[in-house]
Amino acid sequence: MKISARNQLRGTVQEITRGEAIANVAVDVAGQRLVASITVEAVEELGLSEGSEVMVVIKASDVMIATGE
Amino acid sequence: MKISARNQLRGTVQEITRGEAIANVAVDVAGQRLVASITVEAVEELGLSEGSEVMVVIKASDVMIATGE
Amino acid sequence: MKISARNQLRGTVQEITRGEAIANVAVDVAGQRLVASITVEAVEELGLSEGSEVMVVIKASDVMIATGE
Amino acid sequence: MKISARNQLRGTVQEITRGEAIANVAVDVAGQRLVASITVEAVEELGLSEGSEVMVVIKASDVMIATGE
Amino acid sequence: MKISARNQLRGTVQEITRGEAIANVAVDVAGQRLVASITVEAVEELGLSEGSEVMVVIKASDVMIATGE
Amino acid sequence: MKISARNQLRGTVQEITRGEAIANVAVDVAGQRLVASITVEAVEELGLSEGSEVMVVIKASDVMIATGE
Repeated sequence: MKISARNQLRGTVQEITRGEAIANVAVDVAGQRLVASITVEAVEELGLSEGSEVMVVIKASDVMIATGE
Repeated sequence: MKISARNQLRGTVQEITRGEAIANVAVDVAGQRLVASITVEAVEELGLSEGSEVMVVIKASDVMIATGE
Repeated sequence: MKISARNQLRGTVQEITRGEAIANVAVDVAGQRLVASITVEAVEELGLSEGSEVMVVIKASDVMIATGE
Repeated sequence: MKISARNQLRGTVQEITRGEAIANVAVDVAGQRLVASITVEAVEELGLSEGSEVMVVIKASDVMIATGE
Repeated sequence: MKISARNQLRGTVQEITRGEAIANVAVDVAGQRLVASITVEAVEELGLSEGSEVMVVIKASDVMIATGE
Repeated sequence: MKISARNQLRGTVQEITRGEAIANVAVDVAGQRLVASITVEAVEELGLSEGSEVMVVIKASDVMIATGE
């Protein structure tokens, strides 16, 4: 599958914080910690757990730019 | 300023593709190319150009996880 | 590739309206017209044109519910 | 009310998975299951329950396109 | 129509910057300038022009919080 | 820090509804109630509580326009 989302980064799941509906999945991408809030249903369907090798995917229209401190 | 967005990555602007309303800003983050679609107004207000040092900022609810090929 | 995004619908590209940075891609999904605003770069990389068979993908956190008229 | 969001699909609520802050609302749209993650407050204000007739609404900039398997 | 989006603010269109695919619509909300990037198609379908009375609508999952300067 | 997000409104936190992963933060902005769904981790890192003075930040591509009732 090829997807239009312009941002795709390989990483490893570090930690999953699960609620009833949503889980926050922390992913180590080249030493940087990224966090994805996805449905618990997706966590289960993808079989995610600590150590899973994943791709972090982000649509370009959801990316902001900041400058300065 | 401290922002709730969980994902903040330092990088350097590589290229800006400008339309009338929206510009795509490609940013090199540790050798990886990320793309942000932002308003042309923001590009101007932040004074972005090739070589600008920036922070890429993404809200956790906008991040997806993929597995497999 | 398996992606966390909960919403995936098969359809056929009907029309592409291209700007410099962003293109609106209209997709026929079972007789219903959906529209995706994606980068022109993605349109080219995926080789999209009228008649292309595609999957429309949407993250659950981007879906709203309305009631009434 | 007329809204700028380009994607509006009629459906019927199938199931609601409620957390404290967010609920996932599964909607049957012409035999296809879609999922919306919305606030529990919105579920209550709209009076959503299994069988509610609803409209699924999605902004075009939140729609991605994928090709291939 | 009642929509799950938690944020709805009345305002008046101040200015529309149109590209081919996307337009930026600046709205005056109680003296504060807000900007919406929507499709040109939506601008036309809603008949928006300078002075139009509108509602600005934002999903709670798209809102961030910042502190400090 | 200067951010590309076009919409920045000052307000005061009114109420926080916390789940395990996500919290809904209600903010009073000039007498208007806005709601942000952010991670619980962000609530803690920013030290948010009732009465905190904050900025509400929203990317232009996440803003919709509605007309009529």
